[in-house]
Amino acid sequence: MSVTDSSPLEIAKAASISSRSLAILPTEARNDALTAVHAALSSERSNILAANAEDLRLAAKAAEEGELSQSVLKRLDLGRQGKYEDMLKGILDVRALEDPINKVSLRTKLDDGLELERVTCPIGVLLIIFEARPEVIANIASLAIKSGNAAILKGGKETTLSFLSIARVISTALSNTSVPNAAIQLVTARSAIASLLTQDQHIDLCIPRGSNELVRYIKNNTRIPVLGHADGLCNIYIHSDADVDMAVKILLDAKLGYPAACNAVETLLIDESALSSVGAKIADALLQRGVSLRCDALSKAILARTLDAGKAAILQDAAETDFSTEFLAPILAIKTIPTPSTATSPTEAAYVSTSLAIAHINAHSSHHTDAIITANPVMAKQFQAGVDSACVFWNTSTRMADGMRFGFGTEVGISTNKIHARGPVGLEGIVIYKYLISGQGQVAGEYYEGEGGRKWKHERMEI
Amino acid sequence: MSVTDSSPLEIAKAASISSRSLAILPTEARNDALTAVHAALSSERSNILAANAEDLRLAAKAAEEGELSQSVLKRLDLGRQGKYEDMLKGILDVRALEDPINKVSLRTKLDDGLELERVTCPIGVLLIIFEARPEVIANIASLAIKSGNAAILKGGKETTLSFLSIARVISTALSNTSVPNAAIQLVTARSAIASLLTQDQHIDLCIPRGSNELVRYIKNNTRIPVLGHADGLCNIYIHSDADVDMAVKILLDAKLGYPAACNAVETLLIDESALSSVGAKIADALLQRGVSLRCDALSKAILARTLDAGKAAILQDAAETDFSTEFLAPILAIKTIPTPSTATSPTEAAYVSTSLAIAHINAHSSHHTDAIITANPVMAKQFQAGVDSACVFWNTSTRMADGMRFGFGTEVGISTNKIHARGPVGLEGIVIYKYLISGQGQVAGEYYEGEGGRKWKHERMEI
Repeated sequence: MSVTDSSPLEIAKAASISSRSLAILPTEARNDALTAVHAALSSERSNILAANAEDLRLAAKAAEEGELSQSVLKRLDLGRQGKYEDMLKGILDVRALEDPINKVSLRTKLDDGLELERVTCPIGVLLIIFEARPEVIANIASLAIKSGNAAILKGGKETTLSFLSIARVISTALSNTSVPNAAIQLVTARSAIASLLTQDQHIDLCIPRGSNELVRYIKNNTRIPVLGHADGLCNIYIHSDADVDMAVKILLDAKLGYPAACNAVETLLIDESALSSVGAKIADALLQRGVSLRCDALSKAILARTLDAGKAAILQDAAETDFSTEFLAPILAIKTIPTPSTATSPTEAAYVSTSLAIAHINAHSSHHTDAIITANPVMAKQFQAGVDSACVFWNTSTRMADGMRFGFGTEVGISTNKIHARGPVGLEGIVIYKYLISGQGQVAGEYYEGEGGRKWKHERMEI
Repeated sequence: MSVTDSSPLEIAKAASISSRSLAILPTEARNDALTAVHAALSSERSNILAANAEDLRLAAKAAEEGELSQSVLKRLDLGRQGKYEDMLKGILDVRALEDPINKVSLRTKLDDGLELERVTCPIGVLLIIFEARPEVIANIASLAIKSGNAAILKGGKETTLSFLSIARVISTALSNTSVPNAAIQLVTARSAIASLLTQDQHIDLCIPRGSNELVRYIKNNTRIPVLGHADGLCNIYIHSDADVDMAVKILLDAKLGYPAACNAVETLLIDESALSSVGAKIADALLQRGVSLRCDALSKAILARTLDAGKAAILQDAAETDFSTEFLAPILAIKTIPTPSTATSPTEAAYVSTSLAIAHINAHSSHHTDAIITANPVMAKQFQAGVDSACVFWNTSTRMADGMRFGFGTEVGISTNKIHARGPVGLEGIVIYKYLISGQGQVAGEYYEGEGGRKWKHERMEI
């Protein structure tokens, strides 16, 4: 790792060149580098925490002057109970993961003595732009080294001193390993971002970890593929047959577990026929805990009739834009799915309602995570097939959309892209593959239909 | 399929909406649609060929007036021996492929009664822009229907009448199937391309099939991810120990099999010590067949000494730009890899030479396909690990880089992207996945370390 004030072009070129040496290091060499980083960060703890304390002092001043929010201030503190240990443990956790590269995923005998293999390999150079969380630099450096990718890191400015201190420690540690120094570079100047985003010749993937605004700015200002999500507008649809207790429990978790998270629920869709029963219980529980409910006309009318007067009085009217808004706050938009009065059977009514919910979600969701609560597996299946989102859940909270909860060991980010990697992304999201053929001089022109032509064997081989 | 003169926004929106119905059709419904398309194109053969004949008549006139090349003219003719049959057979071939969607690739027991699945699904809406090959429309429509993706198709203007005729036949055939009409739309106005490229809200992936200029234009003018390759600058490196006959055979195939192909070789790298032996034989064979050789100083000097006077006289000087040029013609650039004179062992010399070849290729290749010819498996391994290209071959021709030759059944294109799909891309390049959870009311907040918290099971389940 190096802390650099080279030009963005030089940084990107150096990363690209060093990525080639990093890519061919064996598993042990990459793991040994992680061991070295872990040891160095352990022994330099007090120096790093001193730098962090200075960041904190400056940030506290900025917060006093109203230039920084208390929530940002809080997450800068690397000295908080357990945080430094978690950072150190994270490095060992990544080291313990299965090596994501050099895995054969396809092997075909094209002909005698002519074998095709598809083998995973690093993508190349990652540009990772993240908010002011000092522990993230160690986490990201670990993921990059483990996967054989070079990385250019730019962190939030409020933790510059912590980053510099951590970067110097990692840099010294790596200099005694096989990982080339330019493989992990730390960029401190905010002005460098714009020009780094133009280096699509040398940078292969950009991973922003931060606010919606940051991600949106990056997506709109680069030709480098971007892995991530700008928005997390998650929906939960309550089908008419939903269990009341389950629905209340899931809504409380999805709305209040961490309202600022991308996987928190923002819109509740509920069948008209369930409003006075399940809907009222949910509304009661959420209002009790201070959540503002923005209701469409029908849900407001029915809930107002069912809730006690005090709660009925604080129901709000939803505007159409509320169903396209990521509140990131204790606010929930409620939309009624009308129960069709002309349906010829309960099955038909259920099908129509679920279709309406799916259509609303596909039009309004950010394609991150949406859920249905129903006792009917057929409706669940219809919903999971029909909703075009990275995660589509049945009878559980949207907050389950998370790499750690999915058992991926680590998380590179959550992607709402439609290609490459979707949903919570583990290490496999920062690798790609190449095709290798080993032959004995065979050439394409020898293979043709008819007399004298060689024939392809195309036999799938064991991996 | 519909032939449309709606606005690009309307086209993209309609495709997006219809993609949702197409995505949930069962395998049989999509296969039945292919059967119907096949039957309709079979029975409407004479009408389609009449339309194609009119395209040909107009194109022949344009060719006479020098406005169209003979090679374009040639590929317009759908009436040529076997071409219509191949088009029809292609539809049945695609139908016979394994369904690429609804395949479970991961199944994890998160907890009792809480299961995670990763299931393949269509990407959504594809924008496919292709050159004037009338049979391509049937091929692409088949791939889209098979994979459950909606597609917007824009073909080369010289075959407009053929496209219209084929599109009308396919449209009528699909109207009796479950595939929604707007799932496959044909756009004829060239002016529509620019605005379709701005519809990144509705179009998920763009696949250009045509000239380098077309692909480059598209890559530079859209935020929609582009699957494909603008360049095919392939290299072959001849290591000092390469077998002479094998090397000659591979070079003839790679340079002359189809010089205009993206997988044809453009630069030959050759060890200094092999120039007077293997190099001279290759040069002799290529010059014999009319290939122009553009040599760096050292290779020119050595080849001139070894070849007969007539051939020596027509060796050309390479400019530095020749090593970054995709000739797409019977021209080959030759670069010498110096044999290190200070190496302490043959092993060290071989390692250094191969490293130099790798460095040249990583700096100059288009990362499409590169090959090494050597008898030494260690050098082959070094080369295959070190070269950062989609396809890296040992002792075979770069022309092997092809979906049909790889046994993929069909080919969507060849990608030099570093994410999503790389190299020859089969149907799996136009699908993605989603994560589904089936639960029983479990929520994220229940799982935590310490007393009372539920613990994740994270057991890999059989697929």
